[in-house]
Amino acid sequence: MRAVRLHSYGKPPQLDQVPEPEATGPHDVVVRVAGAGLCRTDLHIRDGWFAPAVPTDLPLTLGHENTGVVEAVGPEVQAVAPGDTVICHPQQSCGTCAACRIGDDMRCARGLSFTGLTRAGGFADLLLTTERGVLPLPAGLNAVDLAPHADAGLTAMHVARKAVPLLGPGTTVAVVGVGGLGHIGIQCLRALTAATIVAVDPDPEARALATESGAHHVLPVDGGEVDGVRDLTDGAGAHAVIDFVGEGDAVGTALAMVRPRGTYFIVGYGGELRVPTFALVLPEISVVGNAVGTFDDLRELVALAAAGGVTVRARRYSLDAFADAFADLEHGRMHGRGVLVP
Amino acid sequence: MRAVRLHSYGKPPQLDQVPEPEATGPHDVVVRVAGAGLCRTDLHIRDGWFAPAVPTDLPLTLGHENTGVVEAVGPEVQAVAPGDTVICHPQQSCGTCAACRIGDDMRCARGLSFTGLTRAGGFADLLLTTERGVLPLPAGLNAVDLAPHADAGLTAMHVARKAVPLLGPGTTVAVVGVGGLGHIGIQCLRALTAATIVAVDPDPEARALATESGAHHVLPVDGGEVDGVRDLTDGAGAHAVIDFVGEGDAVGTALAMVRPRGTYFIVGYGGELRVPTFALVLPEISVVGNAVGTFDDLRELVALAAAGGVTVRARRYSLDAFADAFADLEHGRMHGRGVLVP
Amino acid sequence: MRAVRLHSYGKPPQLDQVPEPEATGPHDVVVRVAGAGLCRTDLHIRDGWFAPAVPTDLPLTLGHENTGVVEAVGPEVQAVAPGDTVICHPQQSCGTCAACRIGDDMRCARGLSFTGLTRAGGFADLLLTTERGVLPLPAGLNAVDLAPHADAGLTAMHVARKAVPLLGPGTTVAVVGVGGLGHIGIQCLRALTAATIVAVDPDPEARALATESGAHHVLPVDGGEVDGVRDLTDGAGAHAVIDFVGEGDAVGTALAMVRPRGTYFIVGYGGELRVPTFALVLPEISVVGNAVGTFDDLRELVALAAAGGVTVRARRYSLDAFADAFADLEHGRMHGRGVLVP
Amino acid sequence: MRAVRLHSYGKPPQLDQVPEPEATGPHDVVVRVAGAGLCRTDLHIRDGWFAPAVPTDLPLTLGHENTGVVEAVGPEVQAVAPGDTVICHPQQSCGTCAACRIGDDMRCARGLSFTGLTRAGGFADLLLTTERGVLPLPAGLNAVDLAPHADAGLTAMHVARKAVPLLGPGTTVAVVGVGGLGHIGIQCLRALTAATIVAVDPDPEARALATESGAHHVLPVDGGEVDGVRDLTDGAGAHAVIDFVGEGDAVGTALAMVRPRGTYFIVGYGGELRVPTFALVLPEISVVGNAVGTFDDLRELVALAAAGGVTVRARRYSLDAFADAFADLEHGRMHGRGVLVP
Repeated sequence: MRAVRLHSYGKPPQLDQVPEPEATGPHDVVVRVAGAGLCRTDLHIRDGWFAPAVPTDLPLTLGHENTGVVEAVGPEVQAVAPGDTVICHPQQSCGTCAACRIGDDMRCARGLSFTGLTRAGGFADLLLTTERGVLPLPAGLNAVDLAPHADAGLTAMHVARKAVPLLGPGTTVAVVGVGGLGHIGIQCLRALTAATIVAVDPDPEARALATESGAHHVLPVDGGEVDGVRDLTDGAGAHAVIDFVGEGDAVGTALAMVRPRGTYFIVGYGGELRVPTFALVLPEISVVGNAVGTFDDLRELVALAAAGGVTVRARRYSLDAFADAFADLEHGRMHGRGVLVP
Repeated sequence: MRAVRLHSYGKPPQLDQVPEPEATGPHDVVVRVAGAGLCRTDLHIRDGWFAPAVPTDLPLTLGHENTGVVEAVGPEVQAVAPGDTVICHPQQSCGTCAACRIGDDMRCARGLSFTGLTRAGGFADLLLTTERGVLPLPAGLNAVDLAPHADAGLTAMHVARKAVPLLGPGTTVAVVGVGGLGHIGIQCLRALTAATIVAVDPDPEARALATESGAHHVLPVDGGEVDGVRDLTDGAGAHAVIDFVGEGDAVGTALAMVRPRGTYFIVGYGGELRVPTFALVLPEISVVGNAVGTFDDLRELVALAAAGGVTVRARRYSLDAFADAFADLEHGRMHGRGVLVP
Repeated sequence: MRAVRLHSYGKPPQLDQVPEPEATGPHDVVVRVAGAGLCRTDLHIRDGWFAPAVPTDLPLTLGHENTGVVEAVGPEVQAVAPGDTVICHPQQSCGTCAACRIGDDMRCARGLSFTGLTRAGGFADLLLTTERGVLPLPAGLNAVDLAPHADAGLTAMHVARKAVPLLGPGTTVAVVGVGGLGHIGIQCLRALTAATIVAVDPDPEARALATESGAHHVLPVDGGEVDGVRDLTDGAGAHAVIDFVGEGDAVGTALAMVRPRGTYFIVGYGGELRVPTFALVLPEISVVGNAVGTFDDLRELVALAAAGGVTVRARRYSLDAFADAFADLEHGRMHGRGVLVP
Repeated sequence: MRAVRLHSYGKPPQLDQVPEPEATGPHDVVVRVAGAGLCRTDLHIRDGWFAPAVPTDLPLTLGHENTGVVEAVGPEVQAVAPGDTVICHPQQSCGTCAACRIGDDMRCARGLSFTGLTRAGGFADLLLTTERGVLPLPAGLNAVDLAPHADAGLTAMHVARKAVPLLGPGTTVAVVGVGGLGHIGIQCLRALTAATIVAVDPDPEARALATESGAHHVLPVDGGEVDGVRDLTDGAGAHAVIDFVGEGDAVGTALAMVRPRGTYFIVGYGGELRVPTFALVLPEISVVGNAVGTFDDLRELVALAAAGGVTVRARRYSLDAFADAFADLEHGRMHGRGVLVP
């Protein structure tokens, strides 16, 4: 079958012919890929960012945002059957450690077993995953365009759920960065809260996407965005800021938008947080890191999608045209999310 | 000035001429009444229900749902000034006891000081309250029609806020009784959650109001309502049931709609809860009593109203026509809430 | 091997010779029983109480509170190995349904698979369970005497964890019934909160056990216990009441001990809760059902036991003397918990 | 009367004769000072640290940790009466703004009105405060030695309450810095949780105080403290770290002690937090700022003190010897807290 594989850090991945995976383990599940979302993390993996923290053998098939149809299952699998349409949680957790027993899949004691990062991913015709890595999709959802929900949407829902208790009526949340994650995050916040949503992005097309996704206000990145948020909040700042960028000036800017007792949720990474302890202590500001999400977050996201509460702005590419998708993402030409279709 | 006063339990109140109240205490606030909502509790007070639990001297001016314009303030009042449009929280709390210091106004250590119940209410031209009993209304809201938010809306928001953490995407909430409180409760739930809302009411007009208020499904009360809720929830029942009736068969019916690990919120009163402990223990069901709400609940409700998230179906009566309003409420001819206008 | 089996509802169980279980399923675990706690629920099962709600084929080996040493494991088991000392959670959950994915083991979508209730229990030489039903015990703990932690302790910890957020310094919790569960519950509350603990039991020996377990005050059941709790709380009542009895007069008495905004946790069952809705609504009282606990509750309990924070008052009986243990429990001669030792 | 006043930033305060304050405002309360705790913040105020953020007219009477006896009250005061022994919350909040209405006294919309910082403090014979700034002390508590609970204890309880939900059995909390706040914080954690407490301090006498206060383990600051915490937690790090230092190397060290999904609570200030966003995002670490506490925190602390759960290691100085106290604090010769006694 076809697979887009990384052979060497810092070099473009390439399309290879590889053997088809088989469901040999008792809980194995093989999925025929319907859609495979392309994520900025794929660029980071390609560039070797994760290599020190998450060492992996190359070549590696990329792709951690997948939907598809179950092709084969191991003998002990009960949760799904061949023919079921599923969305794939990227982490294959053990199910028995203390973290798994409370649903904290990402903290599984066996560590990361992450599609497209520590094991073969879904930029391919078939994906080998496990029973705990698949969630059946209700009928009526478009499996191709939904693929980004497997990570972009999952992460956005995860952080939105954490923010919801802070976002009663009369509050304001700032969303920094309206790309693949941000435009889903705005929809989740709109569906789950009555907060006023202010989206911040330098790109006019991204701001248009923000408005379409439900943002009440949009602000450009022109040096006036902190004042802009303050102007919309009687000078106090936002109750919560969700930063999907996490690098460059965005970090300091996002933190400056937070009101006393507010929370700065960081999702994007790559930059540095640098702040006097005084500036966190006196106003009692919290900074909360967020990565991916739990299986239950995915379940809630799919339920919200089924109820019409959240969609993906997806742009399709054939699997063979993966290099075009990478280029569009890298050069800021992608609005919403790119999806490879095998 | 005019005041609708109860002279004797079990007898109709009557319109009297009484002296105008003055802001003699340091934190007193006198409000010229714009609107005064009529509540089923007014009927209960008239009928002497509260007399044993909350003894009060008669005659008593009724009315605990008020909006208006500040007419005069005591010398220490800083939170409002004459001319401000306000909504009146019915409870005048002390501000210094342990309960007040955490915002639990209804549990003030000095006990109930409740407009229209333990002190003169707002079925009158003027209402005497205190600084801690008034909340300024933002411009652009209709003070007359908003009057029921002071108690009906407040109570609905209070219970909705408690239910929100149980109502993630994919959950179902049943609302039993769609009158003055119920139709606001449905709007709050719709604004604050992504849950599926099932409204239950015997009256077709009430069910129409439920649909207009945002309910996804409506069910009559015909003996099939428990099965109806189960059919809409794969047989499991609702994650939360909010019972605005709390009497007669509604109690048992509402409880039967709750799924294992679900919660039965009781708001209405008058009936009896009777259940084997086994039926609560094994499925771990919770039963939660709810009465009125805090000042902060009122603040959130007003913020939601200002954002367009919740309105009142109000039917206006002149103050002099109060007896018509009582009669319409008592005989089930009122849909939404009646508001007396002095 | 030996097994104490129930052949007919309402009749005493008997000691049989049965085939030894084998670890034939991929996740099976066979445990050589070290201790098997005897629970009032065993009497209820014997008497047919559960038969309508949880139909089971007879004969049934009783016993759902077990510790022991792993004897054999199925081919896919990774969490434990032969020779490990373990404590057995009574419920064998699936690990993939929505409830299991958030750690709500008791609400597993496949329903109850409960040792000694729906499948063969641990009043036997060997117990067949599954990988998700065993938790390794740290070295240094006495596996025999700890057996009751598998259900009595688990249930007590479960309800204590739910009560902890209500029990800050200056609060009072009443514990009604100081038997197998109650004496562990008192220890959990003492370890996890700074609340004042008032234990209520008719039996002087049980009250002595309460004091030994950490209760600050004890009260007999003589008609004065509600006043007793009020006297200890400036007339207001307890912030939380945990009722391990749940039948007879205890229900009404326990509810009457709760202060406004307080919570009545019911653990015991057999009686009826009967209360006017008014009495729950106006003071905003909550009633919370509690059954068994999650695997994570068991993990926390074992961690607390390992830290010396909770012990079991255990009285040992040989497996062959099971009838003596049943009789002692039934006739109120057991203080703390009986443990059968094969 | 006598008052220790700051006349110029960067210079030592001096003992002056000043007029006695009077209870002229309706809610004023004048307290005859029993004890006045000395805080590192007094040094920071003296050195002009707060001058930019919190501008104040000089001369300023220092001292924000007070207990004493009510000497006089304004005409509207109901919560206390002359002769009552009280502890003084340093912040005089308004009671009517949105923050005050939920008990968030430190975020009062009228801003800081903070004893010894924005208004005359309690290094004096008498202190002028307000009704919302005093809490009656139960009989039997030593008002002199308890003075530091007004800020050191309050802050320690505030952060401990926030940490409690993270600190179930089996968890570990590291306390960095065992001075005036730290030794109270350890006692609060011991009383409110079953967590293992690891205290970190460079000073052997401070470590001895930590052990006496209830720490299970102590570690010096010798470059091995991060490894020390990891060794005590199976390599994973602490579930929560509470940093009472917040400056110099302590910041980076404390953060490094936090396990994935753990929380770093910062209380001390003066240093800088500098961390790649990646290091917060991937392990989902939270950083939480903490300052002082609410009136309700003070109420809980006093309740805990009354129950014997928390004491202050106090060293008394006469008010006239204030300079000795300042010197001892500044040169690390104070273990626990210094208290000036007028």
